[in-house]
Amino acid sequence: MIPEKDNEIKQLPDEVQKNIANIKHKFIVISGKGGVGKTTVSVSLAYCLALKGYEVGLLDVDIHGPNVNKMVGLTNETITGDGIRMNPIKVLHNLKVISTASIIDDPDTPIIWRGPLKMKLIRQFLVDVNWGCLDYLIVDSPPGTGDEPLSVVQLINDLDGAIVVTTPQEVALLDARKSVQFAKQLGIPFIGIVENMSGLICPHCSKNIDLFGTGGGKRAAKEMGVTFLGEIPMDPEVIKLCDKGKVFEAFEKNSAVSESIMKITEVIDKYVKSQNVVS
Amino acid sequence: MIPEKDNEIKQLPDEVQKNIANIKHKFIVISGKGGVGKTTVSVSLAYCLALKGYEVGLLDVDIHGPNVNKMVGLTNETITGDGIRMNPIKVLHNLKVISTASIIDDPDTPIIWRGPLKMKLIRQFLVDVNWGCLDYLIVDSPPGTGDEPLSVVQLINDLDGAIVVTTPQEVALLDARKSVQFAKQLGIPFIGIVENMSGLICPHCSKNIDLFGTGGGKRAAKEMGVTFLGEIPMDPEVIKLCDKGKVFEAFEKNSAVSESIMKITEVIDKYVKSQNVVS
Repeated sequence: MIPEKDNEIKQLPDEVQKNIANIKHKFIVISGKGGVGKTTVSVSLAYCLALKGYEVGLLDVDIHGPNVNKMVGLTNETITGDGIRMNPIKVLHNLKVISTASIIDDPDTPIIWRGPLKMKLIRQFLVDVNWGCLDYLIVDSPPGTGDEPLSVVQLINDLDGAIVVTTPQEVALLDARKSVQFAKQLGIPFIGIVENMSGLICPHCSKNIDLFGTGGGKRAAKEMGVTFLGEIPMDPEVIKLCDKGKVFEAFEKNSAVSESIMKITEVIDKYVKSQNVVS
Repeated sequence: MIPEKDNEIKQLPDEVQKNIANIKHKFIVISGKGGVGKTTVSVSLAYCLALKGYEVGLLDVDIHGPNVNKMVGLTNETITGDGIRMNPIKVLHNLKVISTASIIDDPDTPIIWRGPLKMKLIRQFLVDVNWGCLDYLIVDSPPGTGDEPLSVVQLINDLDGAIVVTTPQEVALLDARKSVQFAKQLGIPFIGIVENMSGLICPHCSKNIDLFGTGGGKRAAKEMGVTFLGEIPMDPEVIKLCDKGKVFEAFEKNSAVSESIMKITEVIDKYVKSQNVVS
């Protein structure tokens, strides 16, 4: 069920490859279902890779609901350019962000676009953005297996792979399986599954609340014969920080959440490097 | 930013209107962000309207992640037909369901389609399904303001309106505002906002856990001058039932969740009737 003829999208792919030639590793973060914390995971992975000293870029291709900017505390910052290309916005000295949220005037205005227009915008983000030299480019995609992730996969020839984020809920796992198949069908390497919202500890009585369950992601990974990257628990404090655009603060204190994400980052970093001999 | 020329979608709209002529009221449930419980709300509203004795249809137009079937306990039921049109699946004597999930063979297979193909499928759900005489048709749309809700709005001439589901989180509210604008820009009536996942009571110590906050949906509705339909709290028990395909069981015992949804159903039913003189 992959579209056979996507001629428009394949026009001048060289322009994309030329512009992102100095990015060593590129991966896409996808999910079958929305609200599983995909953006939180993308932003956290970007931050952890930056903490490790890498030059990191984060591209938010969620056109209808771009949340990366909100989560990293960007509000009114405008994108500058050199007349030819746009410069991504620096949120740390070694972490740059580009999101649809930066190019729309009113955050309340919906972008009511059909597929072909979306693809053109994503292409622009890859061709007309001055990404510079990066170790990692993380692409945060909207949920589902629609136009946006499809465009990214078709535009970037040398993706290192896809990471699927899920929650332990059965409905989320059902959709996560689709995302794994999506990567397989499109012939891109599959890095692994992250189980987010895995368990919740009551901040009052410290007992475990079985809100969305735990272990479903690991089980689904085993069933599908793919790598399980790790699980990230729910923490009301971290949710609040993300909501306030202070996602990085969650890493300033040691918590179960920050520990989990650091571990997952290590696994991804090792995987990507084992697949590529980097000059 | 509404596509100006959608000629293909407007071909033969009369066929759609003819096929759904015996459906009194039609509304679409949308959300800016995924994972806010839109499908849970759609299914619950359908169930509550059926409980009130109405003939109800539920159409799941989420093509990439159709979860309605899973939530109402449908697994391997196949759609039957009379050679010309498909029959929706009855989950109660007065509640019928059609979902993409019923027409794909393998639930793990993703549908990797661009916009125009999606529109064709949605059109089929409206033209080639034997909906019969219904009091209500509820359309559960995927998150965002993309091809699916756009197609529904353009195909059904006489939608009673849109309902937006959000959580109290800032990132969800940001996207919910877009959905309200979406309805306004497309000129369809706006019924109101539902705040889901509003507060969580620890099942062990009964203290309130401020997981996603509360009151944000009400505040956003006030700011935007639109109706606030009500808030639905989180209940680990209900989440588990939904996950097991037993969403209706959640209504068999009196709970804060079922009470909230019944109240919201009443408000919607009154609103829709006040806008239409039903023969």
